[in-house]
Amino acid sequence: MRGVPDWTDEMTDQDRRQAVVDLLALLAYTELTAFERLAEDARWAPSVRDKVALAEMAVAEFAHFGTLAERLTSMGEDPEKAMAPFVGPLDAFHESTEPSDWLESVVKAYVGDGFAADFYREVAQYVDDEARALVLDVLADTGHAQFAVDHVRAAIEADAAVAGRLALWARRLVGEALVQAQRVAVDRDALARLLVGGSVDLAAVGQLLARLTERHTQRMQSLGLTA
Amino acid sequence: MRGVPDWTDEMTDQDRRQAVVDLLALLAYTELTAFERLAEDARWAPSVRDKVALAEMAVAEFAHFGTLAERLTSMGEDPEKAMAPFVGPLDAFHESTEPSDWLESVVKAYVGDGFAADFYREVAQYVDDEARALVLDVLADTGHAQFAVDHVRAAIEADAAVAGRLALWARRLVGEALVQAQRVAVDRDALARLLVGGSVDLAAVGQLLARLTERHTQRMQSLGLTA
Repeated sequence: MRGVPDWTDEMTDQDRRQAVVDLLALLAYTELTAFERLAEDARWAPSVRDKVALAEMAVAEFAHFGTLAERLTSMGEDPEKAMAPFVGPLDAFHESTEPSDWLESVVKAYVGDGFAADFYREVAQYVDDEARALVLDVLADTGHAQFAVDHVRAAIEADAAVAGRLALWARRLVGEALVQAQRVAVDRDALARLLVGGSVDLAAVGQLLARLTERHTQRMQSLGLTA
Repeated sequence: MRGVPDWTDEMTDQDRRQAVVDLLALLAYTELTAFERLAEDARWAPSVRDKVALAEMAVAEFAHFGTLAERLTSMGEDPEKAMAPFVGPLDAFHESTEPSDWLESVVKAYVGDGFAADFYREVAQYVDDEARALVLDVLADTGHAQFAVDHVRAAIEADAAVAGRLALWARRLVGEALVQAQRVAVDRDALARLLVGGSVDLAAVGQLLARLTERHTQRMQSLGLTA
């Protein structure tokens, strides 16, 4: 049994492969839970039109899951086993951020998925071309952004007090996401080292966090909320 | 304004067209709610493997919905408007039969959808060839039957008391479904007349109900439950 390597040790080919498997599996389980939450949102949608729109997005996320699971299989990995380490952290995130109404759920899907997507895009810079192309492809927006913007803005227009509540909610989402990301980083050192090693130094990690925060702020502004 | 026709009056072409639109729209909303319930079941599935299996079935149901909505559009109908009369009865059915656990949910999907599918197949005999082919196509089993049988039988094997509870549950499902079907029949006379007119006499309606009951009993037996 090898010891736990220092994060600054050079990565072996085996480490890099494991990091790619981890990235694809983490993303696959993210897509699977995105499917479930969008389908749940569809169920409580205020109109049949919204219901259909959300169901379409849910189906698109499930197609992404399928693509990722196929890639893992073609790499000789069992998707279910590969996803196993991420089930706990992602389920914990969703349990700790159960929306109390439909609007919170729409914000969660947009703000939470947007934050996660930005993070995955950053990590994708450090993997091989083929894996990167796949990650960028499955992260393509399924139309949820505009849907969320339209509905949240309309809700704020109808009742300005909604804005404060949803802004607090979004802050809590990001906080809980960071707690679980930390947990994944500690458990899955190949993935963490890929990011840290690829970023060369901690200043670069700081810049990465600054970019993620900046994009989060932009999303909040597009909803008409303060970050 | 024409008066409400007697059910035994001969149907005009316009009546027949309305009956087909009603049938396709009712089925479309049934598929949309089936999507939602299977996706919800996926969320609470006991394993990632079950989660994926249920999500795949949900996506297949949504594809059926899409096919039906497209057909309505190509007939010059707005799917949302066409589905509107059926939203109330179907939502009421689902609200009055909210499963209290995952197993009840699996039984509901199998027994409830099976009963509905048999009914739609019967109605399909009285519409034009093209509409009938479409209805039979979207009613193709998405793999849910075997999934339900496997899980319910395993649960009964683990705890025999489960069988009595689930048998009562299935009886309630059929009862509530008949209440809502009655409501649809009263509201949508074209659809009801299609079925009754096609059956020529009330004895034939009795035979139809006997066939539906027979198939329901077979499904219950395949689950290891008494009807």
